[in-house]
Amino acid sequence: MKKKFLLTPGPTPVPERVLLKMSEPIIHHRHPEFREILAEVREGLKYLFQTKNEVLIFASSGTGAMEGAVANTLSRGDRVLVVRGGKFGERWAEISSAYGLEVDNIDVEWGEAVSVEQIKERLGKDSYKAILIQASETSTGVKHPVKEIAELVADTDTLLIVDGITAVGVFPIPFDEWKLDVLVTGSQKALMLPPGLSFACLSEKAWKACERSDLPKYYFDFKKERKNLENNQTSYTPAISLIVGLREALKMIKETGLEKIFDETAKMARATREAMIALGLELFAPRSPSEACTAVKAPQGIDSQKLVKLMREKYGFTIAGGQGKAKGKIFRIAHMGYISKYELIACISALEEALLELGYQLELGAGVKRAMEILAD
Amino acid sequence: MKKKFLLTPGPTPVPERVLLKMSEPIIHHRHPEFREILAEVREGLKYLFQTKNEVLIFASSGTGAMEGAVANTLSRGDRVLVVRGGKFGERWAEISSAYGLEVDNIDVEWGEAVSVEQIKERLGKDSYKAILIQASETSTGVKHPVKEIAELVADTDTLLIVDGITAVGVFPIPFDEWKLDVLVTGSQKALMLPPGLSFACLSEKAWKACERSDLPKYYFDFKKERKNLENNQTSYTPAISLIVGLREALKMIKETGLEKIFDETAKMARATREAMIALGLELFAPRSPSEACTAVKAPQGIDSQKLVKLMREKYGFTIAGGQGKAKGKIFRIAHMGYISKYELIACISALEEALLELGYQLELGAGVKRAMEILAD
Repeated sequence: MKKKFLLTPGPTPVPERVLLKMSEPIIHHRHPEFREILAEVREGLKYLFQTKNEVLIFASSGTGAMEGAVANTLSRGDRVLVVRGGKFGERWAEISSAYGLEVDNIDVEWGEAVSVEQIKERLGKDSYKAILIQASETSTGVKHPVKEIAELVADTDTLLIVDGITAVGVFPIPFDEWKLDVLVTGSQKALMLPPGLSFACLSEKAWKACERSDLPKYYFDFKKERKNLENNQTSYTPAISLIVGLREALKMIKETGLEKIFDETAKMARATREAMIALGLELFAPRSPSEACTAVKAPQGIDSQKLVKLMREKYGFTIAGGQGKAKGKIFRIAHMGYISKYELIACISALEEALLELGYQLELGAGVKRAMEILAD
Repeated sequence: MKKKFLLTPGPTPVPERVLLKMSEPIIHHRHPEFREILAEVREGLKYLFQTKNEVLIFASSGTGAMEGAVANTLSRGDRVLVVRGGKFGERWAEISSAYGLEVDNIDVEWGEAVSVEQIKERLGKDSYKAILIQASETSTGVKHPVKEIAELVADTDTLLIVDGITAVGVFPIPFDEWKLDVLVTGSQKALMLPPGLSFACLSEKAWKACERSDLPKYYFDFKKERKNLENNQTSYTPAISLIVGLREALKMIKETGLEKIFDETAKMARATREAMIALGLELFAPRSPSEACTAVKAPQGIDSQKLVKLMREKYGFTIAGGQGKAKGKIFRIAHMGYISKYELIACISALEEALLELGYQLELGAGVKRAMEILAD
């Protein structure tokens, strides 16, 4: 009978409308009906990515599209610059190494954003084929200055390859306007779908790089995929039910409007941060927080894993702990996709109870009150 | 109001039980509840593959696991032997070439199976690191003699890498007993799920080959995936809803029993073939037909694409046409997974109507009658 709430930075809750669509009988992917769905989805994805370019769709989790971004635009021995300030920055470095690239890392303290100066300095010293970065580093709740970095490299030969998995649909990251080169995302974040779809958008500069690339690829072959997608087909059997759900999710996004989604998400992010401060907690990423999720340091003497477990088992709220070296030290509350501000308030109220139970001193209701002040219309 | 029926060799219909499970609210993949699901699914997959070995699970379509099989077990410049007797045989060759392997093809006429003699002859002439083959070549409806080929190479260093996408759960292909080295499959065939999951099972010999492999891989890194799966986790965010559905589908398979599924599928395959012959039609793969789907030559003067379109648009039955060079020449009716014998009879009855409409002479009911004789209990 216990009601459950999901506020993790992926997966996020799937709207009932989308669940219902996905549970309709399966249709064939070469059927005209499905091709119409793909045509509609292509338009919706362009709206979401704020681009005129094609957005490729893969049956995989986001990591697949990240790997594809590397394997399609780069070549053996290419030197790349990786911003490594969290688990997903590490992933860019791992993928690049797996493909035999020369990897230079900028190691950024977890919880901090890279500075534009740091990038500029490295670009002055060496020649890089690409910079690989997260727009939103989900593991630390940090937002990196992608717009400013894009300005540095837009008129050079260096590609800017951006993991937007918890950025696209969360906060503004207009692909064309900012002149990004590759932007990838996944289905289980702001897109409000189950995991299993990944997406990649490429600039003309990136498509040219694909022509030169000599790295092996097959399933994530971007050129082949674009060619098929232009005919409302996919190269290999697509994840049909997820794409049917995607159409509905994109409809919902269009109905609400990106601007409004960005505004509300930002407000929920601010409310969460302020609520945590009102509870006397310390933010893990105070200087450049992502609107996707708020990372908070566990109070002295409290293991964040224990807090997360208590929240889930006793209170029914699934939030996230820390990953990698932040494990046990932080907890993360998501506020993107199909998470309402009232669920967020409910989550903060449960968090207050749980913290009290673990011996942390707080004034019951202080966090919720602060969040309500910000969230009230 | 027109009721639709799906009898294509992928996707196949998804049982209502599975659809309902998949439309439950999404859970987090690091949640203990999901890890229990994975533990159950691992056991179910071992039953399905008839193996004691681990069966890896990926969020991708079947092609992803095919690529993984190559990228994980082979090394740059390795010589491989590909049985190329249809579109999916071609896919093995394409993947192998994309990874810089030396590819020797055995080109088998579409509609025919490779002979064990042909394989033996090639093995006598050259040394191969692997043979790549389809157990069931979906594009032609042919079954290749995998068991006999496995006997040839079991005690050698050559790996037998088998695409079992329309074989696993369709007809007996016991992984351990036959001493296969890699066997891959996908979710949207006998597993009765939407597309979006792929699977791979490896022998000890294949796992040893993984240690030597120098090809780049990341998302489809088999060793990493096995290590995580042993802890009921996946390396990257899994396709949660599909795995929740998979648990239910595997339960259904276990409840019915593999033997019974194989028997009924074989009976439906035979009934389909006999019905086509009773209608005066010619089978495309008369000598070694797969139980997954029956490929039939379109009658003289009738474009099979036109027949498929008429079947879908007027009669509500989605069957498949030909792929690649068989396009327009053949049609394919599937009889695996969640397709009942009564749907098959219904499909044959619609086919008779459609053929008559296209000017083909037949005795109405002759095909259905023949199928019923075989299918009646």
